[in-house]
Amino acid sequence: MSDQVLSGKVLLAHGSGGYLSHELVERLFLKHFRNPVLARLDDAAVVEVSNLGLLVPGATSPGVENADLKLAFTTDSYVVSPIFFPGGDIGKLAVCGTINDLAMSGAKPLYLSAGFILEEGLAFEDLELVVASMAETARTAGVSIVTGDTKVVGYGKADKLFINTAGLGVVPSDVDIGSDKARPGDVIIVSGPIGDHGMTIMSQREGLRFRSALESDCAPLHGLVAAILGAVSSPGAGGSSPSPAAIRCLRDPTRGGLATALCEVADKSKHGIEIEDRAIPVRDEVRAACELLGLDPLYVANEGKLVAFVEPGAVDTVLTAMRGHQYGRDATVIGHVTDEHRGRVVLRTALGARRIVDMLVGEQLPRIC
Amino acid sequence: MSDQVLSGKVLLAHGSGGYLSHELVERLFLKHFRNPVLARLDDAAVVEVSNLGLLVPGATSPGVENADLKLAFTTDSYVVSPIFFPGGDIGKLAVCGTINDLAMSGAKPLYLSAGFILEEGLAFEDLELVVASMAETARTAGVSIVTGDTKVVGYGKADKLFINTAGLGVVPSDVDIGSDKARPGDVIIVSGPIGDHGMTIMSQREGLRFRSALESDCAPLHGLVAAILGAVSSPGAGGSSPSPAAIRCLRDPTRGGLATALCEVADKSKHGIEIEDRAIPVRDEVRAACELLGLDPLYVANEGKLVAFVEPGAVDTVLTAMRGHQYGRDATVIGHVTDEHRGRVVLRTALGARRIVDMLVGEQLPRIC
Repeated sequence: MSDQVLSGKVLLAHGSGGYLSHELVERLFLKHFRNPVLARLDDAAVVEVSNLGLLVPGATSPGVENADLKLAFTTDSYVVSPIFFPGGDIGKLAVCGTINDLAMSGAKPLYLSAGFILEEGLAFEDLELVVASMAETARTAGVSIVTGDTKVVGYGKADKLFINTAGLGVVPSDVDIGSDKARPGDVIIVSGPIGDHGMTIMSQREGLRFRSALESDCAPLHGLVAAILGAVSSPGAGGSSPSPAAIRCLRDPTRGGLATALCEVADKSKHGIEIEDRAIPVRDEVRAACELLGLDPLYVANEGKLVAFVEPGAVDTVLTAMRGHQYGRDATVIGHVTDEHRGRVVLRTALGARRIVDMLVGEQLPRIC
Repeated sequence: MSDQVLSGKVLLAHGSGGYLSHELVERLFLKHFRNPVLARLDDAAVVEVSNLGLLVPGATSPGVENADLKLAFTTDSYVVSPIFFPGGDIGKLAVCGTINDLAMSGAKPLYLSAGFILEEGLAFEDLELVVASMAETARTAGVSIVTGDTKVVGYGKADKLFINTAGLGVVPSDVDIGSDKARPGDVIIVSGPIGDHGMTIMSQREGLRFRSALESDCAPLHGLVAAILGAVSSPGAGGSSPSPAAIRCLRDPTRGGLATALCEVADKSKHGIEIEDRAIPVRDEVRAACELLGLDPLYVANEGKLVAFVEPGAVDTVLTAMRGHQYGRDATVIGHVTDEHRGRVVLRTALGARRIVDMLVGEQLPRIC
């Protein structure tokens, strides 16, 4: 490749989830793999699958001719270090992260795969803790790990263990959610305070201690998504009846944080996004840790939060549904979509100033997930 | 874990595909993840997926009520070293290997995911060669890479690049293939000479040179499987008409080689397997390399071969179909299933002696795939 961004060697920042990751995907992976599904670059691919029928052409089987399904399919590798941290471990993260990517397409997650790359010399005790945590997380979330693979590489050729999970879910036929669906006027809701996961990992590595303990927010969000979709699909008490189409876009702001997720939606939808600095929820201890380390919470990873882009008429319904769910209690409106500054995210500060929010450039913190 | 096999630390042999891999799966992964689909331990999981219908309970959508599909879902991580080798590279391997796991369930492969773990400092030139190779292999095979993920770890925390692919395919409704389906009398066919992939990698590492160049057999086998299933599903010229049920079991003998694949089928089906030493095809250069290095070709990995367990009445049909396909030209019968020595594989030597063939114990060659 003969350009500035992808010449030479891979940098840690190419895995940041920010600008260089974006460039790597656009200029390398999309260049070679290009197809319409991949090009949407959502958290999960949504594909239509049809029954192939019988092997003998012309034969039919009653009841299967119309077997078309909308499936969500996604993958993530997890390389977080340390592998155990307050609020979770690499196994819980690997199950929740992939469930969440499926959920952001509106899918009901059903099946996961688990691929392990183990470093020779890893203690079985640690491996069993991780595997047990994956099993417990999957059981609680109602998904099954149905296929897997294990590779072992020599000592020093990996770092303890890496886990890949891929996930499969079914998207209800009347749900159509995507980053390109956001429209001017849509209201942006975040499900709770941001930055917990990233600052927990960072504090572990830096040995920081705070008055109240920081914990990763690592959690499966498909129940919260089902609550949102259920709320907009039921006839309202006042006779108003939103529909699943009121939910335009869902994102889980992991690597690259809230800022990067919003930038991606602005880019894909070709509309502008405006958020209010004061409205963005951040825990005191996360803010303190960020100040100490010179980080901006907008760019810090979350593993149990979602951002919803909602039709204005459905905002109250969605907020009520989210606040009634354990993972959405602190849901709050942070901004809206506008037809100004298209493709850009703008932050309004408490003093009324406006600044452009860019994708993460460089690497804040490697191996956050 | 308080047993001999899984106490202490992970060994390279736990990734061999042989006995210790088997124990790791049985005693750790199945212990925690146990569910009926995973417990079958076939190359791909076959799951039934139903349309969830509309979100409002009771509502129906014409034509989707019966939308049940049999899907094949599988994953593998690839850590082969070196990443480029005669006949392929880690990218081609990652696409073919996962296509083949799907194909062994009788599925038509449709979609792949790609998860990359990159080592900081990897040359982009190498990464692009691998990505282009994946794209070309997928295009030729008619599958789409629809979702992906990239992580970067620090220099020295991985070895160049690791790739995980997961795959999704549709299993025709009248196909039911599995390791537990083999029955006494079934004839065992191998699609061509064994050991090419493993000895190619080994020769690269050891710097061995042979008169005729060794090449990996890395290839996508779903076309060969479709040819086999098509042949047994069409009415025969002589009026005989086998059915897809004539194909009991398909396996691709990768890590652990032909011996380990056969041992797994003997174990799952609870029947015995007898193979003829003389009948097993091995290229001269593979045999020579094996002798030089003290290896048994029965345990050496293949990446473009399959073993089919076929009802006796369909053997000629299957052999003809296989030999008419580019990846099955040298297909040949190597043995049969018996109700003697249940759960065991027995090899008959040229001199008429019989010896038990066990799973690979220890590690012949790490990072073969």
